[in-house]
Amino acid sequence: MGKSALVVSAHPGDFVWRAAGAIALHVAKGYRVKIVCLAYGERGESQWAWKKADVSLADVKAQRHAESEKAAAVLGAEIEFFDAGDYPLRLTEAMLDRLVDIYREVKPSFVLTHSMEDPYNGDHPEASRFAQEARVIAQAAGHKPDPSRSYSAPAVFLFEPHQPEQCNYKPNVILNIDPVWETKRKAFEVLAAQQHLWEYYTRVALNRGMQGGRNSGKPMTYGEAYQRVFPAVVEELS
Amino acid sequence: MGKSALVVSAHPGDFVWRAAGAIALHVAKGYRVKIVCLAYGERGESQWAWKKADVSLADVKAQRHAESEKAAAVLGAEIEFFDAGDYPLRLTEAMLDRLVDIYREVKPSFVLTHSMEDPYNGDHPEASRFAQEARVIAQAAGHKPDPSRSYSAPAVFLFEPHQPEQCNYKPNVILNIDPVWETKRKAFEVLAAQQHLWEYYTRVALNRGMQGGRNSGKPMTYGEAYQRVFPAVVEELS
Amino acid sequence: MGKSALVVSAHPGDFVWRAAGAIALHVAKGYRVKIVCLAYGERGESQWAWKKADVSLADVKAQRHAESEKAAAVLGAEIEFFDAGDYPLRLTEAMLDRLVDIYREVKPSFVLTHSMEDPYNGDHPEASRFAQEARVIAQAAGHKPDPSRSYSAPAVFLFEPHQPEQCNYKPNVILNIDPVWETKRKAFEVLAAQQHLWEYYTRVALNRGMQGGRNSGKPMTYGEAYQRVFPAVVEELS
Amino acid sequence: MGKSALVVSAHPGDFVWRAAGAIALHVAKGYRVKIVCLAYGERGESQWAWKKADVSLADVKAQRHAESEKAAAVLGAEIEFFDAGDYPLRLTEAMLDRLVDIYREVKPSFVLTHSMEDPYNGDHPEASRFAQEARVIAQAAGHKPDPSRSYSAPAVFLFEPHQPEQCNYKPNVILNIDPVWETKRKAFEVLAAQQHLWEYYTRVALNRGMQGGRNSGKPMTYGEAYQRVFPAVVEELS
Amino acid sequence: MGKSALVVSAHPGDFVWRAAGAIALHVAKGYRVKIVCLAYGERGESQWAWKKADVSLADVKAQRHAESEKAAAVLGAEIEFFDAGDYPLRLTEAMLDRLVDIYREVKPSFVLTHSMEDPYNGDHPEASRFAQEARVIAQAAGHKPDPSRSYSAPAVFLFEPHQPEQCNYKPNVILNIDPVWETKRKAFEVLAAQQHLWEYYTRVALNRGMQGGRNSGKPMTYGEAYQRVFPAVVEELS
Amino acid sequence: MGKSALVVSAHPGDFVWRAAGAIALHVAKGYRVKIVCLAYGERGESQWAWKKADVSLADVKAQRHAESEKAAAVLGAEIEFFDAGDYPLRLTEAMLDRLVDIYREVKPSFVLTHSMEDPYNGDHPEASRFAQEARVIAQAAGHKPDPSRSYSAPAVFLFEPHQPEQCNYKPNVILNIDPVWETKRKAFEVLAAQQHLWEYYTRVALNRGMQGGRNSGKPMTYGEAYQRVFPAVVEELS
Repeated sequence: MGKSALVVSAHPGDFVWRAAGAIALHVAKGYRVKIVCLAYGERGESQWAWKKADVSLADVKAQRHAESEKAAAVLGAEIEFFDAGDYPLRLTEAMLDRLVDIYREVKPSFVLTHSMEDPYNGDHPEASRFAQEARVIAQAAGHKPDPSRSYSAPAVFLFEPHQPEQCNYKPNVILNIDPVWETKRKAFEVLAAQQHLWEYYTRVALNRGMQGGRNSGKPMTYGEAYQRVFPAVVEELS
Repeated sequence: MGKSALVVSAHPGDFVWRAAGAIALHVAKGYRVKIVCLAYGERGESQWAWKKADVSLADVKAQRHAESEKAAAVLGAEIEFFDAGDYPLRLTEAMLDRLVDIYREVKPSFVLTHSMEDPYNGDHPEASRFAQEARVIAQAAGHKPDPSRSYSAPAVFLFEPHQPEQCNYKPNVILNIDPVWETKRKAFEVLAAQQHLWEYYTRVALNRGMQGGRNSGKPMTYGEAYQRVFPAVVEELS
Repeated sequence: MGKSALVVSAHPGDFVWRAAGAIALHVAKGYRVKIVCLAYGERGESQWAWKKADVSLADVKAQRHAESEKAAAVLGAEIEFFDAGDYPLRLTEAMLDRLVDIYREVKPSFVLTHSMEDPYNGDHPEASRFAQEARVIAQAAGHKPDPSRSYSAPAVFLFEPHQPEQCNYKPNVILNIDPVWETKRKAFEVLAAQQHLWEYYTRVALNRGMQGGRNSGKPMTYGEAYQRVFPAVVEELS
Repeated sequence: MGKSALVVSAHPGDFVWRAAGAIALHVAKGYRVKIVCLAYGERGESQWAWKKADVSLADVKAQRHAESEKAAAVLGAEIEFFDAGDYPLRLTEAMLDRLVDIYREVKPSFVLTHSMEDPYNGDHPEASRFAQEARVIAQAAGHKPDPSRSYSAPAVFLFEPHQPEQCNYKPNVILNIDPVWETKRKAFEVLAAQQHLWEYYTRVALNRGMQGGRNSGKPMTYGEAYQRVFPAVVEELS
Repeated sequence: MGKSALVVSAHPGDFVWRAAGAIALHVAKGYRVKIVCLAYGERGESQWAWKKADVSLADVKAQRHAESEKAAAVLGAEIEFFDAGDYPLRLTEAMLDRLVDIYREVKPSFVLTHSMEDPYNGDHPEASRFAQEARVIAQAAGHKPDPSRSYSAPAVFLFEPHQPEQCNYKPNVILNIDPVWETKRKAFEVLAAQQHLWEYYTRVALNRGMQGGRNSGKPMTYGEAYQRVFPAVVEELS
Repeated sequence: MGKSALVVSAHPGDFVWRAAGAIALHVAKGYRVKIVCLAYGERGESQWAWKKADVSLADVKAQRHAESEKAAAVLGAEIEFFDAGDYPLRLTEAMLDRLVDIYREVKPSFVLTHSMEDPYNGDHPEASRFAQEARVIAQAAGHKPDPSRSYSAPAVFLFEPHQPEQCNYKPNVILNIDPVWETKRKAFEVLAAQQHLWEYYTRVALNRGMQGGRNSGKPMTYGEAYQRVFPAVVEELS
């Protein structure tokens, strides 16, 4: 049975700008990758949509839903929507229960989610807290008990927030995304209304790429930064 | 149209001891200053009131309400009460909605609120979290959408807690309040039952004043310390 | 009237592995020690129980209840259960009210509880937050007012989590538990299903003991580490 | 008498990549700006030069000296070289004495220097430590006493290191360098052998510019990030 | 044989403003207290002296020497001068050797010294580093070996710097100095030229006193704050 | 050509207690491992030796030299001694030059050294600073220039200090040393005079082993903790 990975994203843009390289790369390596998109970013990250007259919340959500599905398809990932509402993100016990089930069903090797602080956007740390709470509950033998179940809590990698230093975010992993850069860029282009961010996050990828090269001594062009939360357990240092 | 500022205070004493200098100073400069007082401090910061027999919660709240209005008037500021209850402060979605509306109506240049940690008083970080959450939601185009609205999230300054080091509070701004010291002191005196704190916070002001002089090389007598949360964006270094 | 202490523990194992030395030692010194056990660890810390077919949640809770009462008895402490549920621990306003009453009734010199961060187990920081919130509310004169009441907020000591560095836990107190080591070990043995942890926490006690000796220059064998949250107020440095 | 500023740079590249915007901007505002360039980067930051056969240390230093003078001229700043050697930077008491004299002669409003940590390059924090030590000694009335002297220690701003998060660098000021971007870019081009860094630091400037716009709500294109070390003392919050 | 304590102070003012309460209090309890004053503060903390014409360094040092001896006498402590020079403090291997001998001869229960960071004054962290290095070397059996020697490294308490938060200083001990306040104040008055600091540090003592009362629940008036570096090893929690 | 690793150890015990597992494991994998032992621990870590009458420094050093060579041989590593003196460790420019040559000759994939803070032992952070300074200088093309040289700075892993939390040490890698545990234990036994530490560090290995199992979900018995300093650059997340 193949490997898998899980992505818990507050809004559609987050999995695209911050993690699309990791998603596409692991899909290319044969992983099943599942994205849980908690909200549509309908209120706080869809400014362009609200500039039109007579637009409804349902319209904006539908638009972002379609866009997110398309971006996930470009990346080769599954996507599930929780429609929790944004600004603020308000997560329920039922959603927690659903996410626990997803962890147990997907059995990911790793989960990607938000940084634990973000003074610019409270939805982001809330999504991270939620993703981590579900990860731990999924280990509880007495939650929907089933002695035949095997499950082991996955590694957690926090993807890069918009202003890393203000979030006390310190990357300790740089992922080389050269093999899938074109795919990541195509996913950017699905988010047609946010063209200024295409360039911003292309620059982030190039600069993380150069930093990756400096840290490893091996040239690379495009990188994604991650912060590993738990110690890596290894058989060899490298 | 003139400038304005917003103060989000957990209890009445907080805006007086911690921020009365900034309030009076900016009022003197022509700012509209609005204070949102989340609770009356009726249970946790009114010890003297509860020493009398037969006092009711309603009495204590009325007393603190009157006192707070008087202190705000001394400072020249507007005040609005949320009556959220104290010890613990329990904020609702309706209050969040109201605070978002206030941000949008006042359009403050800056907001003053509590430090993000305070092991002595959980109401304080809760007030800060709430003030910052509302500030971000106010930016969301899809929250009560109105394409004609203009709004930009203000700077956030955290005022000084009672025991700064225990709150991991690190001031990066010292405000010279010499021009309004007498007014701040008059606001202290409105809080007639807490005379020991008049002297405590006078000493705080004098010591922050001397620190201000040391940092700037220019003499000053009274200061208030603040911690700016977000980077200052400037046209000149100074 | 004698001295007393309070322990707020998320699950039964916590007060045994992390604080049994302090409990037994202060009982031996004549303290009244009361343990508040918030949940039974029925879902997340009872893996062995769920390996049997047809076990019910009520069975597991009853088993852990009995075990906890026995461990408390070995240590000479009182115990009260809140049955708040684990993984996740969900604490209510009624439980907060009850814990405030306990603080006021027990009038502890100190309270022992969890570290404020624990990425492995969200129930632990939640228990710590709750214990600290109740401690502060207990000071509020207007909460169930009674002018004849005397109460002073106790010192707070955080006991050692399973992986201290990952919890940003930094001990600043090492308690010599040599006089009660055998009792602590007996409490371990009550938790019959978790024999691997008997040895783990015996090693922790021995290593904290050696560190204690290095820090004090006086030999000792078994130690428990604590992190004091508030400044110690002293009449002499030592 | 006009205002002035001081820049203490470990190597030539540093004042160009990290601070050329601030230098050109303040020159444009009429400041006298003086750069102290501690070493030529002759050993550690001149890889291309050492690829030729038969190159001598004196040649490399001469080359970097010429380049640095040209870059300073492009920016409109004075430059003084300490020739302290690089990799490692080894600063002497005589150099400290000279830098103290420079502080007293220039009387800068602010000094720009390196971050206080940089695991990639020990010369950088050493330069910062040295710049800050001299700043404090310049205040000592008994160092070359002269009762007629007036001197006040300037504000310190740390410019951005190559990998900010790894240096525990947290910017709290973003300087809008739009008016002088073309000049900064021209200074880049003086460093002809390091073309890959032209693009890297152009991307840094664009991304700091977008962050500046987000933080202030006012559009800007190019930014430089700084970390202010001491509290700002202000007459108004903004 | 009685108890003893050691104080390692960069300049004369430091042991007076920051530690005179602890010194006098422990003298009153029968401790032998020895102060090591590393420099006279002749260049950096004697501004008033340099305002006179024709004053020489030797004069200023003699003046500060006399003043320091008088302050130590008021406090009942011994004092030894290292005359290491100030601004910058430059400590030699011979001084380190002498301080190691002092540790071994005095056998202090605790040592008081400076905070480990102080961006306003590099002499302070340098003094702290030196005091801590000597403390560890004094433990080395092979340094001036003598099998009959007994020595155990003392507790270290860092006294309060002028601007605690800027030094990342977090007090975890508040010492009640009410019994010796008048003596501390008399020591202030020996430093006749620094009258503005008498009031500043009186206010510090009063505010630390009120914080002490809040933390302990027992009233006190004057306090000194300390940061304990190593864990306290205790037989009882309190 | 095979892989290699470098270990920079302040004293003989350090490479044994803290890194012997990694050394033996990588030797077993075919790595060349070279240990640089900066001092013999002759003064500060040889208490037992100094208990005899008439022992000389040369004797103690010879004893520790022999012991260290034997331990290195048990582990299958090369060892080179710098004889820099301990308590305090005093490193010279000539030693720095030698270590740079070693980096360039060994071309290690990774270097193991001490934590960057250790209030119990100043030699440890000094060794770490030195190891890291040499690592960077080895990259400088102009240091002993040779255009044909290839060299890339290795990863840095900090091994575990005696009291990790007091050193602000946070492991982010746990190395499974099960395959070589017996070898590590044999190296312990070479240090015949420090039998109490055999047991201490066996307990450390067992507890890190259990933590490793918890973090990975895969059982293991013995572990060594490391703190990676620079980001890992990876082709796949795991």
